[in-house]
Amino acid sequence: MGLSCIVFPGVNHTRFEHAIGAASLMRSAIASLTMKGVEITDDEAEAVTAAILLHDIGHGPFSHALEQSIVVGISHENISLMLMEALNEEFDGRLDMAIRIFKNEYPKQFLHQLVASQLDMDRLDYLRRDSFFSGVTEGTIGSDRIIKMLNVRNDSLVVEYKGIYSIEKFLIARRLMYWQVYLHKTVLSAEYMLMSVLRRAKELVMLGQELFATPALRVFLENTITRDYFTGKPFTNGKTLLDLFVELDDNDVVVAIKQWQFHEDKILAYLAESVINRKLFRIRIKNSPFSPKEVLKLEYKIHDRWGVKDNDLGYLLIKDSITNNAYVADSDKINILMKNGKVREINDASDINLSSLSQTVRKYFVCYPKELDIN
Amino acid sequence: MGLSCIVFPGVNHTRFEHAIGAASLMRSAIASLTMKGVEITDDEAEAVTAAILLHDIGHGPFSHALEQSIVVGISHENISLMLMEALNEEFDGRLDMAIRIFKNEYPKQFLHQLVASQLDMDRLDYLRRDSFFSGVTEGTIGSDRIIKMLNVRNDSLVVEYKGIYSIEKFLIARRLMYWQVYLHKTVLSAEYMLMSVLRRAKELVMLGQELFATPALRVFLENTITRDYFTGKPFTNGKTLLDLFVELDDNDVVVAIKQWQFHEDKILAYLAESVINRKLFRIRIKNSPFSPKEVLKLEYKIHDRWGVKDNDLGYLLIKDSITNNAYVADSDKINILMKNGKVREINDASDINLSSLSQTVRKYFVCYPKELDIN
Amino acid sequence: MGLSCIVFPGVNHTRFEHAIGAASLMRSAIASLTMKGVEITDDEAEAVTAAILLHDIGHGPFSHALEQSIVVGISHENISLMLMEALNEEFDGRLDMAIRIFKNEYPKQFLHQLVASQLDMDRLDYLRRDSFFSGVTEGTIGSDRIIKMLNVRNDSLVVEYKGIYSIEKFLIARRLMYWQVYLHKTVLSAEYMLMSVLRRAKELVMLGQELFATPALRVFLENTITRDYFTGKPFTNGKTLLDLFVELDDNDVVVAIKQWQFHEDKILAYLAESVINRKLFRIRIKNSPFSPKEVLKLEYKIHDRWGVKDNDLGYLLIKDSITNNAYVADSDKINILMKNGKVREINDASDINLSSLSQTVRKYFVCYPKELDIN
Amino acid sequence: MGLSCIVFPGVNHTRFEHAIGAASLMRSAIASLTMKGVEITDDEAEAVTAAILLHDIGHGPFSHALEQSIVVGISHENISLMLMEALNEEFDGRLDMAIRIFKNEYPKQFLHQLVASQLDMDRLDYLRRDSFFSGVTEGTIGSDRIIKMLNVRNDSLVVEYKGIYSIEKFLIARRLMYWQVYLHKTVLSAEYMLMSVLRRAKELVMLGQELFATPALRVFLENTITRDYFTGKPFTNGKTLLDLFVELDDNDVVVAIKQWQFHEDKILAYLAESVINRKLFRIRIKNSPFSPKEVLKLEYKIHDRWGVKDNDLGYLLIKDSITNNAYVADSDKINILMKNGKVREINDASDINLSSLSQTVRKYFVCYPKELDIN
Repeated sequence: MGLSCIVFPGVNHTRFEHAIGAASLMRSAIASLTMKGVEITDDEAEAVTAAILLHDIGHGPFSHALEQSIVVGISHENISLMLMEALNEEFDGRLDMAIRIFKNEYPKQFLHQLVASQLDMDRLDYLRRDSFFSGVTEGTIGSDRIIKMLNVRNDSLVVEYKGIYSIEKFLIARRLMYWQVYLHKTVLSAEYMLMSVLRRAKELVMLGQELFATPALRVFLENTITRDYFTGKPFTNGKTLLDLFVELDDNDVVVAIKQWQFHEDKILAYLAESVINRKLFRIRIKNSPFSPKEVLKLEYKIHDRWGVKDNDLGYLLIKDSITNNAYVADSDKINILMKNGKVREINDASDINLSSLSQTVRKYFVCYPKELDIN
Repeated sequence: MGLSCIVFPGVNHTRFEHAIGAASLMRSAIASLTMKGVEITDDEAEAVTAAILLHDIGHGPFSHALEQSIVVGISHENISLMLMEALNEEFDGRLDMAIRIFKNEYPKQFLHQLVASQLDMDRLDYLRRDSFFSGVTEGTIGSDRIIKMLNVRNDSLVVEYKGIYSIEKFLIARRLMYWQVYLHKTVLSAEYMLMSVLRRAKELVMLGQELFATPALRVFLENTITRDYFTGKPFTNGKTLLDLFVELDDNDVVVAIKQWQFHEDKILAYLAESVINRKLFRIRIKNSPFSPKEVLKLEYKIHDRWGVKDNDLGYLLIKDSITNNAYVADSDKINILMKNGKVREINDASDINLSSLSQTVRKYFVCYPKELDIN
Repeated sequence: MGLSCIVFPGVNHTRFEHAIGAASLMRSAIASLTMKGVEITDDEAEAVTAAILLHDIGHGPFSHALEQSIVVGISHENISLMLMEALNEEFDGRLDMAIRIFKNEYPKQFLHQLVASQLDMDRLDYLRRDSFFSGVTEGTIGSDRIIKMLNVRNDSLVVEYKGIYSIEKFLIARRLMYWQVYLHKTVLSAEYMLMSVLRRAKELVMLGQELFATPALRVFLENTITRDYFTGKPFTNGKTLLDLFVELDDNDVVVAIKQWQFHEDKILAYLAESVINRKLFRIRIKNSPFSPKEVLKLEYKIHDRWGVKDNDLGYLLIKDSITNNAYVADSDKINILMKNGKVREINDASDINLSSLSQTVRKYFVCYPKELDIN
Repeated sequence: MGLSCIVFPGVNHTRFEHAIGAASLMRSAIASLTMKGVEITDDEAEAVTAAILLHDIGHGPFSHALEQSIVVGISHENISLMLMEALNEEFDGRLDMAIRIFKNEYPKQFLHQLVASQLDMDRLDYLRRDSFFSGVTEGTIGSDRIIKMLNVRNDSLVVEYKGIYSIEKFLIARRLMYWQVYLHKTVLSAEYMLMSVLRRAKELVMLGQELFATPALRVFLENTITRDYFTGKPFTNGKTLLDLFVELDDNDVVVAIKQWQFHEDKILAYLAESVINRKLFRIRIKNSPFSPKEVLKLEYKIHDRWGVKDNDLGYLLIKDSITNNAYVADSDKINILMKNGKVREINDASDINLSSLSQTVRKYFVCYPKELDIN
C-alpha cells in the first residue's frame, strides 16, 4: 500500500499477509471448481497455489515509487519471474509447473487466470484487505460468493449467472477503492515526493557526491539498472543484482531519507525533511491538463522563492496524470455463464450499462510546496 | 423482511430495531448538516427524528403480503399518517411539526427528504441492516460516509462531490440486495403463497364459512376494508378499525394459518399446510411473460391432479411480475454538489453511465405446487 | 432467549439458528478430534450431529416460563427424547445411535459429553451467539480455540493444557452472561410476569371461565399435564399431547395474552396488559432473603390498592430466588490434559483459584407493580 | 508489539494508532464522568488527553528489547517526560498541566489514574487493539462498558458495581493476552535473540571493531548511556542525545541487523542471520528454575559445536524468567463503588476469588540454537 498509511493510519498490512490471503482464496477456488467437476490434479493445485503465493515477490520497497525513480529498467513482474526461477533451482524444479502457469505457458489456461486476470485471487484478496484496513468498508467485495460462482468453460474462467450482481458490485467497489484510497490525493502527493527525493539522490550520486545509503540501496543509486544487470554476473561482494534487490526493503529507503534531511544539497534536504515530517506538497487535480501558462507561473514562483535552477524545477514542481479503468474488456474479459449454457461478456450479460467502467478516466495533477500558496 | 427468514435464517430483526436505527442515523445527519452551517432548530431536530421513528408505523404484519390480500383498500403510508395523528392528539400537538415534515408540508423541504427520498435515513438503515443480518455482506453501504457528505443547497439535500463513489456504490448495492435478498425466488414463492392462503381464507369467510381467527384478524377477513372504515366510528367492542389494525401482528396470522391446516376446505388446508411445513411452490422466472399456452398447460395439470375448479385455479397457480429500479431519477433526484458549487444530478455528475440503473427491470414468474414437476 | 429482547432489542435469534450453529461446531469438533487420532466412525459422526441438532427440540415456547407455569409435570429433556423417538420411528431407526448418545447409553462416553456437558457444543454455540446478538461483546468466547484444544483420554473429553486460558475465559464469560443478560433484572421481571399471567389464565380455565386460546394452548390450560399424558393415547381430534405440544409456539402465547387484556378478570387483564405494553413490575434483588415483614408490607399495599384477595396476592407479588454457578465441578468436570500426559481437573490445573466459580451464588428478589412505589 | 508479528502476522499496528485510540477512549471517559457530575474543566480535559496522547512517546524502537540491551541507563517513562518537557517549551508552557497530571503532581489525582493505573486508557486501548489484530478475539474487553461504569469517589477512580463482571472479564482477558500473545514462547525467543544481537554489536563496537550502523544507532552502540547524557549538552553534530533518540526507529535497527549478517564476527553474523531468516532459538519454559546441571550441559554442547568462549556463551544460551500478574492490588487498586455508596477493593467486592490473579506467576526459560536438539 505504499504511503497510504499517511492518510489511513490502519493501513500497515504487509505483502506477506496479502500473499497468504491470496493463497487461501486460491484453495477455496480450487475446492469450488473441483466440486463442479473441473479437473485440477494435486500437482496443479500445488502449482497454482505456489504461483499466487509468489506472484508479487518481485515488488521492491514502495514498489511503484521505486520503479519510477531508481529501479527503472525492469518491471516487477520480470523480477518476480527471476526470483521464482532462482527458487525453482533451489527446489530442484519443483516450481516448474507454477512458473509455466505464471507465464501462461501451461495448457490449462484457466489456472493462469486464477493467478492473473480481471478476477484473479490477487485482486479478490487485496481489495477486501485494503478495504478492511483502510476503514473504507464500502469497498468490500463478496470474494466468497464470487469464488463460489466461478466455473470453467472452454478452458476459460467464467462466472455463473447468479453471481452477476456480485461482479457488478466488485467492479464498482474496485473503482471506488481506486479513487478513494489508492489514488487519494494526499497519498499521491506523498508518493510523488518520494520519487522526487529518490531521483534527486540518484542524480547527486551519479555526479559523484557522497550520500548516506545502505549497501543495497547504494548499488541502485550508483547504477543505471537494466534488465541485463539482473541476470548477469555477481555485482559486488559476490552478490548478484538480484541478491541485492532482495536485500533491499522499506527500511533501507527510510533510514536513507532520514539522513538526507541533513545533507548539504538543499533540494535533497528539503524534500527529505518534507517527507519525514509529513509536510506534503499541495496537490491540485483536474480533468484536463494544466495549461503551460499555469505551469510557468508556478515555476516562476519556485524560482523566485528558492532560486532553483531550471534543470531542477522538476523536483519541486511535479506534473503528471493518473488513470483508472475499473474494467478493461479488450484483453481479458469477465465472462458470464448464462442459464442457457452460453457464455457472454459481462457487458452483454448485465442489464445495466457497464461500458463506461471500461473507459479510461484520466486526471491531471500538479504538486508543489505549500509555501507557494501563501504569496 | 416478511418471509426472507425462510432463505436467510438470521433475518429476524424487527421493525422496532429498524426504527431505532434510522433515528440514530438521523441524529448523525442532523449533526453533520448543522456543522456545515445548515440551520436546524432544536424543535426541527426533534420533529424530523420523530418523523423517521414513526415513518413505518403503519406497516401491518407481513406487510406487503397483507396489503395485497386482505387489507387492500388503503396504503401503509396512509395508516402511518393516521397513527401519527392519533399519537399527536395524545401528545397535545407535540407531533404537529413531525407530521408536517412527513407530509412534506413544512417549509424546509430538505427535512422531508431526510425522511422520504432516494437518500432518506430509512433506506440508509435498512440496506445496511438487511445486508448484515442476511449475511449478504457485499450489500453493505457506506451510510456513515454518505451522511458525512450530505449538505443542503436551495433547500434541497445534496451530496458533496467527494461522496460520489459512495453513492454509486449505494445504488449498485441496493440493486444487488433487491435481486439477491428481497426478490429472492424462494422468498417470492413463500410470500405469494401467503397471499394465496389469506385470499382463500377471506373468500371462505365471505361465503359464510367458519374459520379460526383472532378477533382482530377476523375483522379484516370479514370485511372489505376501505379507507373510510379506518377513519370512521368504532367498529366492534368499542374499537375503531385503526385500534384493531394496531392489535394485529405476525402472531395473529401465524396461529390462524396453523389452524387452517386442519380446515375442511382442501385448498385452504393444502396452502396452509404447505406454508407451515415449508413445502414451497416451484417458481419459474423469466424476462418475458409466460405464454398463454404455457399457463394453460399448468392449469390443466392442476385441474387433472386435484380437480380444482376454474375459479379456484388462481390459488394454486400464481402469475405475476416483479420490477426493480435501483434509482428513479424523474421524481426525486440524487443531486451532487460539484466542486465549483453547482448542483448536478448524479447521472450528469458521475463519469460512469448510471442511466441504466433508472430503467425499470421487469421479470415475470409463475408459482405452482412442486408435485406438478413429477409428471 | 425468552423475553431478553425486552432489554436487548437485537436478541431475536431463534432456536433453529442455534441448533444449526451447534451442529456446525460439532462438525469442527469431530474434525479436530479425528485429526488427533480419536476414532469416530462415520455413523457416530452422523449420530452425534443428529443428537446436537435435536437436543433442544423439546423446548416449548418461552420455555422456562411455560415449564414453570402451565407445562409443569414434565421436563423439556423428556420431551426432546420423546420427539427424537417419534422421529426415529419415522426414519426407521436411523436415530437409534443418536438417541443412545443423547441418553448416555452409548459406549463412547465422550460423544455424549459433546452433546451434554460443561463443554458441550450447545454452550459453545449459545454463549457466543447470545453475546453477539445482545451486543454484550465481552461475553464472547473462543469457541474455535476451545474446539481445537479438545482431546479424549480414558473415553472422556479433555482440554489440552495450552487451552487453559480459554477455559478460564469461557467460565468468566459465562458468569458474566448470566448476570448481565440471562438474569438481567428487567428480563427476570418480564419472565416472572409471563408466568404469573399464564398461571392466572390456567386457574380461571380450571374454574370454568371462558378464555380466548388457540386449540393447542387450550389443552395445556385445561389439563394438569403429567408425563403419562404425553405418552398416552390420542387426546383430542386424533392428536396426542405430543402433537399438540409441537403445534404450540410463541405465537399461541402472544395472541392469547393480547386478548386477555380485555378479559373481565381484573388480575388477568392487568397482568396481560402490563406484559403487552411493557409496564414491567419493579424488581428488587438482594443477596439475602426478604424478611417476612418486608413482604407483608408489600402485601398490605397491594391489598389496599386493589382489594386483591389473599389467595391471589401471589399473582402481583412475586417472590423467588435465582442461582448461578458458572461451573459445577461435582458431577461433570472440566479436565485438563497436562503437558506430562496426566489429566487434572481445571481447578487443580489452573494457577488461579477458580473454586469460587463452582460456588452457587443465590440472589433473592421480589417483583411488584410499580404503582406501589408511589405511596 | 515488538516482534509479535513473527507469530501473529496481522500484528502490524503502530504506536501512533494506539496513541490516537487511547486519546479517543479518554474523550469517552471524560464525557462519561462529566455526565455523572464529576468536574473536569476544559483545560483539564485537554491536558489529560494530551497526557495520554504522549504517554508512550519515550518508547524507542522494539522498546523492551532495546531498553534491555543498548539503551540501559534510562527508562522509557523518563524519556517520555523529557520529550514532553521539550514539547512544552516549544508550545510555550501549554503542556504544563498535562505534565503535572502525567507526573501525578496535579491535585485531581483521578486524572492521573486515567493516564496511568490498573484501569487507564492505555490498557483499555492496547488490550482491545492487540486482541483484534492478533486474531485472539477472546482477549477482547468491554472497554466501552468499563468506561461507562467509571466514576470518582474521594478523588479516586472507581467502577460502579454494575460493571464488576466487566472488570473480572478484563482481568482474565489481560492474563490470557499475556500468556497467549505478549509472552508467547516464539515471540519471547525472537525478542531475546534481538537483545543478544544488539548486545553483541555493542560489545564489538566498544572493542573498536567497525560495524555498519546509521548515525543515530551508532551513538547508542558506542556509548554507555546514562540519564545524564540525555539532559546534557549537544552530543554530536549539534544534536542532543534526545534528538538522536527520537531519530532512531525500527528501520535503523533492521537495516543494521541485515548488514551484520555479513560481518566477520561469527557470533554477530550467526545471530543476525538467524533473526533475519526467522531461524529462531528453541525455547523451553518451566515453572521452576533450570538446574545448573541442565544449563551446563547446554553450555558444553554450544562449546563443542562452535568453540564459543566462556565469555560469549551468553549470546547463544539465554536464561531468564518472565512474570505475569494480571492485577497488582498493593500499589494501585481497582475499587468498586457498591450500591450502598461504599467503596471496596475488587477482591472484596467480587463474589469470586480473584486473589490468585494478584499473585505473581513466574516462569523460567532457556533459549538456544535449534541445532543443539539434533545430537
